[in-house]
Amino acid sequence: MEPFKVYEIKQSVFANNDREADKVREELKARKTFLLNLMSSPGSGKTSTLKRTIAALKDEMRIGIMEADIDSDVDAEAISKTGVKVIQLHTGGMCHLDADMTRQGLNELGTEGLDLVVLENVGNLVCPAEFDTGAVKNAMILSVPEGHDKPLKYPLIFQVCDALIINKIDVLPYFDFDLEKVVEYAHMRNPKLKIFPISAKTGEGVDAWCDWLREQVGAWNN
Amino acid sequence: MEPFKVYEIKQSVFANNDREADKVREELKARKTFLLNLMSSPGSGKTSTLKRTIAALKDEMRIGIMEADIDSDVDAEAISKTGVKVIQLHTGGMCHLDADMTRQGLNELGTEGLDLVVLENVGNLVCPAEFDTGAVKNAMILSVPEGHDKPLKYPLIFQVCDALIINKIDVLPYFDFDLEKVVEYAHMRNPKLKIFPISAKTGEGVDAWCDWLREQVGAWNN
Repeated sequence: MEPFKVYEIKQSVFANNDREADKVREELKARKTFLLNLMSSPGSGKTSTLKRTIAALKDEMRIGIMEADIDSDVDAEAISKTGVKVIQLHTGGMCHLDADMTRQGLNELGTEGLDLVVLENVGNLVCPAEFDTGAVKNAMILSVPEGHDKPLKYPLIFQVCDALIINKIDVLPYFDFDLEKVVEYAHMRNPKLKIFPISAKTGEGVDAWCDWLREQVGAWNN
Repeated sequence: MEPFKVYEIKQSVFANNDREADKVREELKARKTFLLNLMSSPGSGKTSTLKRTIAALKDEMRIGIMEADIDSDVDAEAISKTGVKVIQLHTGGMCHLDADMTRQGLNELGTEGLDLVVLENVGNLVCPAEFDTGAVKNAMILSVPEGHDKPLKYPLIFQVCDALIINKIDVLPYFDFDLEKVVEYAHMRNPKLKIFPISAKTGEGVDAWCDWLREQVGAWNN
């Protein structure tokens, strides 16, 4: 038996996604569950950042993870080894999740008793940014090899996020990546964005990110 | 004056995109212009690979470049320095180009006398793969930092492409990237896929890629 459930998401039938998203948040608030929507390009390190985050927080809160992917189970497989509750959501080719699709995932995962649920969205900087999933906060990862010009090219995702993780800072010496510039460009899109340079590989900077997340979860659930 | 035109793409009105794509190809065939659709994640090195490709081929063929981006002009700016004809296409938030949008770009660029036009699609591994742009061939870039599991997670784009460029091989020592595995996974999706490991930074491997492209252009235009 697989150590996690695989669920095929159904297309939503709701015309007003923003209203459904608000309803999802109300349901989460009532159950004292915080939902984080984590977005990024393919390969920027969502799953490895999650593994670090789980290791740092799992002794102080009950965590559930929803891995959204078009087709494979490799991410849920990786997360299941951390011992937290995890479900693999298959989007069947769809490039994003909306609020009702997120609700389907929450129902299949079962949020009873969970303090924090993280939705690892489909790897894509464009479409996921357009749909409110019902998450309490949105975070995104930009990795050093992707380049510091991304806030110029993909404006919306930087606007809708509360936190930006800059991952793979361990390889900064090998890339023409200007950390000051990316902070400047990102704040140009969204002055309130919290920015956390980290290396999911070495663990550097992960504490500051987890402090922020811990604070958000505490504020929502209490 | 900007050294390139910026064009705001309009949403297509055609229900049957595959038919429009075939029409675009017929028009290109009649004008002896080869169109390459180049796709990848954000930050995998489409623009720097294009710069290398232009440098290698511009003395033997007339090249035009269409830079599709949601918002910025940074790519057209970079390409305009190579001296080839270039246009910046703004998709206004849209995550892909279809055949009619590609035709709008071709008309604005002006293909008269061009042997090769490259469409640099929006950075996205999901949506662009779903729409035939009317290109003669599709190519994609996967860069080493993105990881070798991507053919498992984003199957369609590997299926619709004729060529796969594995970029940033100069940083292979710093990443857990298995070149043999990515070839195996990619060929599992598409046994006919031509694979070219390159470094757009150092120029390594670019010749083999350009040989393939030269051959495709020659076969189409003669």
